[in-house]
Amino acid sequence: MSDAQRPGEDDLIARYFRPLAGPAGLSLLDDVACLAPTPGQDLVLTADALVAGVHFFPHDPPEAIGWKALGVNLSDLAAKGAEPLGFLLSLALPPGWTAGWLEAFAAGLGDLAGRSGCPLAGGDTVRTPGPLTLSITAFGEVPAGRMVARTGARPGDRLYVSGTIGDAALGLQLRIAEEPRRAPADWIQALAEGEREYLRERYLRPQPRLALRRALVDHATGAMDVSDGLVGDLQKMMRASGTGASVALETVPLSPPARRAAADSSAFHVCVTGGDDYEVLCSVPEDRAGPLVAAAASAGVPVTAIGKVGPAGSPVTFVQDGKVVSFDRGSFSHF
Amino acid sequence: MSDAQRPGEDDLIARYFRPLAGPAGLSLLDDVACLAPTPGQDLVLTADALVAGVHFFPHDPPEAIGWKALGVNLSDLAAKGAEPLGFLLSLALPPGWTAGWLEAFAAGLGDLAGRSGCPLAGGDTVRTPGPLTLSITAFGEVPAGRMVARTGARPGDRLYVSGTIGDAALGLQLRIAEEPRRAPADWIQALAEGEREYLRERYLRPQPRLALRRALVDHATGAMDVSDGLVGDLQKMMRASGTGASVALETVPLSPPARRAAADSSAFHVCVTGGDDYEVLCSVPEDRAGPLVAAAASAGVPVTAIGKVGPAGSPVTFVQDGKVVSFDRGSFSHF
Repeated sequence: MSDAQRPGEDDLIARYFRPLAGPAGLSLLDDVACLAPTPGQDLVLTADALVAGVHFFPHDPPEAIGWKALGVNLSDLAAKGAEPLGFLLSLALPPGWTAGWLEAFAAGLGDLAGRSGCPLAGGDTVRTPGPLTLSITAFGEVPAGRMVARTGARPGDRLYVSGTIGDAALGLQLRIAEEPRRAPADWIQALAEGEREYLRERYLRPQPRLALRRALVDHATGAMDVSDGLVGDLQKMMRASGTGASVALETVPLSPPARRAAADSSAFHVCVTGGDDYEVLCSVPEDRAGPLVAAAASAGVPVTAIGKVGPAGSPVTFVQDGKVVSFDRGSFSHF
Repeated sequence: MSDAQRPGEDDLIARYFRPLAGPAGLSLLDDVACLAPTPGQDLVLTADALVAGVHFFPHDPPEAIGWKALGVNLSDLAAKGAEPLGFLLSLALPPGWTAGWLEAFAAGLGDLAGRSGCPLAGGDTVRTPGPLTLSITAFGEVPAGRMVARTGARPGDRLYVSGTIGDAALGLQLRIAEEPRRAPADWIQALAEGEREYLRERYLRPQPRLALRRALVDHATGAMDVSDGLVGDLQKMMRASGTGASVALETVPLSPPARRAAADSSAFHVCVTGGDDYEVLCSVPEDRAGPLVAAAASAGVPVTAIGKVGPAGSPVTFVQDGKVVSFDRGSFSHF
């Protein structure tokens, strides 16, 4: 589309982004957002950047790109027990952008913003000679002093994850297999088309676990969202908490399609090391495990016990069928 | 530099960014920042993106790039009367980044952060196949209900700008003239090297006018920072306020080097239409003009009267030597 057919920055903001703005966004007429914090609440802020060709495929549906850009930020707020208040969007548009792309992108972004009670509060739109690049800063609030930190796991705590693990990583493999000159793995060929579609959607549209917010604040000692793979993120959380852990891999919750794929051990490896789950990993004292499970179930997001936090300085071990499994440099080897 | 010689993401954060983090940054160990808002204050947030080759020269000193990325955001907070509390940085690094570049970038960023009481609170570091891309979200606070909005100018108010206008736009022209195969304009050849250096610095290291914060909250009805050129930004503010204005161009404050350059009318045009001033434009009721000028002077950032806000629906007119000057599509023409 030529420049003449595309809206300028002011028009673009008015057409596509003003409808997404909440009161803090001041109708996007100012350079800033302004809001009155709720007394007794702490403010929680998070920023994530996404680059076309690095964090998503340039030809992914624009609605899904918009959804995901906000979703990965809301996932961080959810894992901290924070309620979203709003977000700022920095959008760097490449030379070939079109009004149609932007309209669909804004629709996907607005869809998740609406469902999450997290309106647009401001941002910046610029041009780039490079790939489409997005950065979103989302902010929310949590009762004062109650944010669930990554550093809070304590020896003896139980480890839980929400939902199911590995769907999105399998969905990414499916998308890669759809590229020209790729031979699909055996596990891909074993799936029905409906199962493939489920996994692709889990990759494209992460579901931030905001419904777990209250359960985490009430019961968890520590938490983070699982975005870079369960194995790596669990190691990261234990390192931050100064603890070890023991995880039983056969207890990691898998969806029916992932379970079918994971009959192939290479697909199971993808599930537990691949990224983009956007589920919540949390640590819970033993006497809070029952209340956490009940609160999560009544919030509609089941959680599953996968292991236990070990003593300070102990290693993080993964066990499968009674054997210790080592994940060395991302590779998966029994010994 | 090869990948093997460069720090990974965790190391990079620990080495270059953790030293810049304040308490809200939780030592950059979590995915989020967390802070307790001050009772009785509103929260103000702003985001600006910068792309190498669009908003700065890729070979600008990395210290200056770091300074400017934060500076343009602090300038927005300053114009709203907000006191900075912290910032989040999204950094997309291109393939050729080096540890030395990043160290110098962080030093420049940290220099302004330290001077402004605005520590790093979090962010994200990713790779991009495109140009270096930065997005900063800065946040601050202002007494509840007292944020100085862009929409607040009222007919009869006096218009003031801080500091001097046009230095940075001239500095940018100087930098462009230094590129190969460019013939420097006459006004450039008329400047002494010290004058050129002053203008270049004004382009590279904007000074956010945070010292004016209190004066603006106490006296201004409306304000914005001048980032896209005085003429365009003044029109933008009057449009947002639903008012007209009359500006006397000969009253626009110029630094001594800019005044010398502006003997050439093309350089004066650059001064009033070019960007990157990061000064404050504000509207002030007539009876507050004296107190504003006094408060600004005692804060060390003089302000200068340049005109008056006109009735609702009236045009924005620029007058020079008794003649109306029209800026049509950025061009400068007497008629």
